[in-house]
Amino acid sequence: MKATPEKALPFFRAHSNHRGKDDMQIDERTNRPIWFDSQQALVQIIDQRLLPHELVIVTLYTVADTVKAIKDMYVRGAPLIGVTAAYGVYLAARRSRTVADPSGYLAEACRRIKGARPTAVNLHWAVDRVWAAIKDLDSTSAKVATALICANAIAAEEAENCRCIGLHGLQLIEALRDRKGGGTINVLTHCNAGWLACVAYGTATAPLYAAFDKGIDLHVWVDETRPLNQGARLTAWELGRYGVAHTVITDNAGGHLMQHGLVDMVIVGTDRTTYTGDVANKIGTYLKALAAQDNGIPFYVALPSSTFDWQMTDGLKEIPIEERDPDEVRFVQGRDGEETRTVLVPPVTSPAANYAFDVTPARLVTGFITERGICAATADAIRGMFPELT
Amino acid sequence: MKATPEKALPFFRAHSNHRGKDDMQIDERTNRPIWFDSQQALVQIIDQRLLPHELVIVTLYTVADTVKAIKDMYVRGAPLIGVTAAYGVYLAARRSRTVADPSGYLAEACRRIKGARPTAVNLHWAVDRVWAAIKDLDSTSAKVATALICANAIAAEEAENCRCIGLHGLQLIEALRDRKGGGTINVLTHCNAGWLACVAYGTATAPLYAAFDKGIDLHVWVDETRPLNQGARLTAWELGRYGVAHTVITDNAGGHLMQHGLVDMVIVGTDRTTYTGDVANKIGTYLKALAAQDNGIPFYVALPSSTFDWQMTDGLKEIPIEERDPDEVRFVQGRDGEETRTVLVPPVTSPAANYAFDVTPARLVTGFITERGICAATADAIRGMFPELT
Repeated sequence: MKATPEKALPFFRAHSNHRGKDDMQIDERTNRPIWFDSQQALVQIIDQRLLPHELVIVTLYTVADTVKAIKDMYVRGAPLIGVTAAYGVYLAARRSRTVADPSGYLAEACRRIKGARPTAVNLHWAVDRVWAAIKDLDSTSAKVATALICANAIAAEEAENCRCIGLHGLQLIEALRDRKGGGTINVLTHCNAGWLACVAYGTATAPLYAAFDKGIDLHVWVDETRPLNQGARLTAWELGRYGVAHTVITDNAGGHLMQHGLVDMVIVGTDRTTYTGDVANKIGTYLKALAAQDNGIPFYVALPSSTFDWQMTDGLKEIPIEERDPDEVRFVQGRDGEETRTVLVPPVTSPAANYAFDVTPARLVTGFITERGICAATADAIRGMFPELT
Repeated sequence: MKATPEKALPFFRAHSNHRGKDDMQIDERTNRPIWFDSQQALVQIIDQRLLPHELVIVTLYTVADTVKAIKDMYVRGAPLIGVTAAYGVYLAARRSRTVADPSGYLAEACRRIKGARPTAVNLHWAVDRVWAAIKDLDSTSAKVATALICANAIAAEEAENCRCIGLHGLQLIEALRDRKGGGTINVLTHCNAGWLACVAYGTATAPLYAAFDKGIDLHVWVDETRPLNQGARLTAWELGRYGVAHTVITDNAGGHLMQHGLVDMVIVGTDRTTYTGDVANKIGTYLKALAAQDNGIPFYVALPSSTFDWQMTDGLKEIPIEERDPDEVRFVQGRDGEETRTVLVPPVTSPAANYAFDVTPARLVTGFITERGICAATADAIRGMFPELT
């Protein structure tokens, strides 16, 4: 995070800047972090870097816009990165009509988009899927039309996957409630695997929204999730708008809460999960999984099938872990009166390191909540759930 | 932490405000967070809330000053809390000369000081020690003189204890270096158990300073330590001024570093350790201990004998864990140009919780580094080290 956040980027051309609840164009219950405006033929996103204090919508026009939005985390979260990348290929197809070598331009665009971030497997998966759908088409117009259909389909499928994840996860929460025999169900989550990360419903949050809608007495412990505070900024914002009871905690607090019986279940998302069950997710997830195991608390990972990596067998050795700008650790962004400001915490001369993800070994995972149902964190169970993909 | 930090408190009467390295009165190598100025007969402290960006020295005049300095964390760290409390009893004795019932006033003052924070055992220990030394003295003047001698003695003993902790801990680091056979020794620490917490040398940092002085190739991973960022603000500042190589990381990162062989050893301090080996320390310590165990990395706790609790047997059930103002989680303080500012991170409507400590069970502790030497985390080993205290 830069010391002075950019308020509007020239090549992004900020479309609108809604503040407050009343004038938000986004409907309370059908929230989306990305959409295709068919009337104006525009791909639009929420700039998540400024939430929860400012809601800014930006329009993506080019491949460069798409890469920047993914790299600089205007959008983040494995499913949303995939969907944004898919729309990026559509934007590339549109632009390819004006270049000398449309096929070469398109292939290069796909490479650039895939290179935007290293960890989320959905990025490659989504680009490859759109590319496969358009690469052998003769006319550029057909490529444009098909890329859009494909990107829209990916978005719709991710939303539907998340809805199904919610229904399957709900069963786990209902079972917990029945076992507990009364009282609030306390779920801890790390980072944001909500609708902001996933087109709709979210992955980790889908069971929470489903339980809330079912009237279950639910409370969510929200890890603030340093360095970029996606928990405090995004998950707390999502849950608060929906009316779900929640409390923001430091990333340090979860172990203590688990030791004292204040956590019934952990649900997190993932950026890439090997078919053997190793889970790459936001840095710090591994520490919560260790604490959950030490205290006999179920630790679930919610993900659509697009987040499984069907090649890698050893997540710890094989999944590339992104190192990001150390200034994201050194500076913290927040609200000071009417201003969004960024403050330096450590001494100006102290260096910092910024590993974005860690890998939780399968042995610490109670199970996966997928769009098809719930399975154990073993290769056999995962393959059994998705036989056609392995 | 309040949204607007107080720059100077009327009853504290800020004595001076040194900025920058050149005009610091504090000598580079004989740093102290508290001292008795015998020429002016003043108890003075560094206001640690404003470090590393501002170095403000304040004078304590009264019991109320002492309680506020401890409660609001002008001073923090178990040994320093004890020393500050001891000087607080001296200030109370001084003031008692002007009240109708000096003995009643003094007894009440001791109760108030002990109530300033619940977790650090040194607070009770130090007050009781000064009280025991003065309570049966006839004249108030004798009480004042004895209280000062006693407080000075506690400060000197804590400094000497830390020096010895450093020498014993150095042996562990030298053994690690010999086993590793070359390359940098990477030590991870959580929170600040440096000289700022301890009069001099520090507890967890004493072995680090000793190793650095011995010319060992050392690098320290500094957990930023949310919510109050004592690692990023204080430990990084201490290490940087001394010239020790260090890197600030989020509290989430340590597990990943340990999984990848980037941590050779963990050393932390403690606010209270039961004689059975359970360690209360800054929230999040337990998570690092779990990760160290999972990766076969030695996890040491450095402490003077004054931090042992000889009554409690089950740290998890018995040690009181302080809950502090949730705004310490919601707001982050840092530097914005020439200003120290505080920014709100989560939505204004989201509640937060702020548990200040957690308890690491003895089973996760490799050993204790004390002023007498190193011992295992068992009641027998601890009692064997301090037979006269148990």
